[in-house]
Amino acid sequence: MIKRSGRRRGSPDTRESILEAARQLFADKGFDATTVRAIAANAGCDAAMINHFFGTKEELFRATLQFPIDPATEIPHIVAGGRDEVGQRLVAIFVKIWDSPTGAVGASLIRSAMSNDWTLRLMREFLITQIMRRVAIEIDLDPAEAPLRVSLVASQLSGLAMMRYIIKLEPLASLPAERVVALIGPNVQNYVTGSLAAAK
Amino acid sequence: MIKRSGRRRGSPDTRESILEAARQLFADKGFDATTVRAIAANAGCDAAMINHFFGTKEELFRATLQFPIDPATEIPHIVAGGRDEVGQRLVAIFVKIWDSPTGAVGASLIRSAMSNDWTLRLMREFLITQIMRRVAIEIDLDPAEAPLRVSLVASQLSGLAMMRYIIKLEPLASLPAERVVALIGPNVQNYVTGSLAAAK
Repeated sequence: MIKRSGRRRGSPDTRESILEAARQLFADKGFDATTVRAIAANAGCDAAMINHFFGTKEELFRATLQFPIDPATEIPHIVAGGRDEVGQRLVAIFVKIWDSPTGAVGASLIRSAMSNDWTLRLMREFLITQIMRRVAIEIDLDPAEAPLRVSLVASQLSGLAMMRYIIKLEPLASLPAERVVALIGPNVQNYVTGSLAAAK
Repeated sequence: MIKRSGRRRGSPDTRESILEAARQLFADKGFDATTVRAIAANAGCDAAMINHFFGTKEELFRATLQFPIDPATEIPHIVAGGRDEVGQRLVAIFVKIWDSPTGAVGASLIRSAMSNDWTLRLMREFLITQIMRRVAIEIDLDPAEAPLRVSLVASQLSGLAMMRYIIKLEPLASLPAERVVALIGPNVQNYVTGSLAAAK
């Protein structure tokens, strides 16, 4: 029997119940189909509590994964200088974040998300709705091509994270950031603006 | 008290002790510095038993990770048609293996290797000594450039595995194999034969 006093509304328990309900609904139904009201109902609290603890639904999603950066503030930097250099800039920002202390958080996030299907689903949903979608809009991709282009970019960047920061494969792991940008940027650029034609 | 009869020499216990000793030595000292004799000593068995159970030191390493393909037989296919198409062929073979039932084994291998530093180290050592080294030799890379080129290739292929087979990100996850080869092959080719100059 838990005594449901007014005091409990702000307790760590409530916060954890909200996170738990959100993780489950985001993974099961997806981000778009999940309402704050539904999360509140599953967590057994008022929707206002979610706003109180986490702010927006986007911020709540970020909290469920303890995702170390805020896509809403970081992604707009990518386009700051025009489309032709977007590949380089994507790699530069990616490496800057991963080279910072945040990178260790990212590595442990990925490593633990790998451990079960459910967290993997949650991570995929986050990648699609919080990162890829924003990137596609920011760099103004043709909506018909955007999912393929962004998933190709994701294939290169996730592998860079894996080899440079998780497996720590040399010489890639110790290469200066600007070298990584010069080597990998053009390929990412190719995914953003190159041909997607079926024939080579 | 375990009765050490002649019968025990071929027991599953011995096999498991050898694997355990090999995992530890390969991760701690590396593949090259680890002798079959040292593994036998740590496992408390005769070196001949290792040959009996596993064959070569390379095959023993493969067994420690339950690595689903034999690099010694698969990697030579990559070069069969000359250097200019090696990027495409690398992606084609990679996707063919991952699209087969073997892919599921690979995915669970990667996912479980992520779980601790020690298996991650073992996987890195395998990647370097059993895969990258062979690839570099097979495609006849300049030894001074080989480690960087092969680690760049690894960054693209590991990310492809991550997004297509582990995270299962669409549309990349459902793309026909030849489409994946056409889209990602040229970038891999670029890592194999393109410029590595520091300035862009």
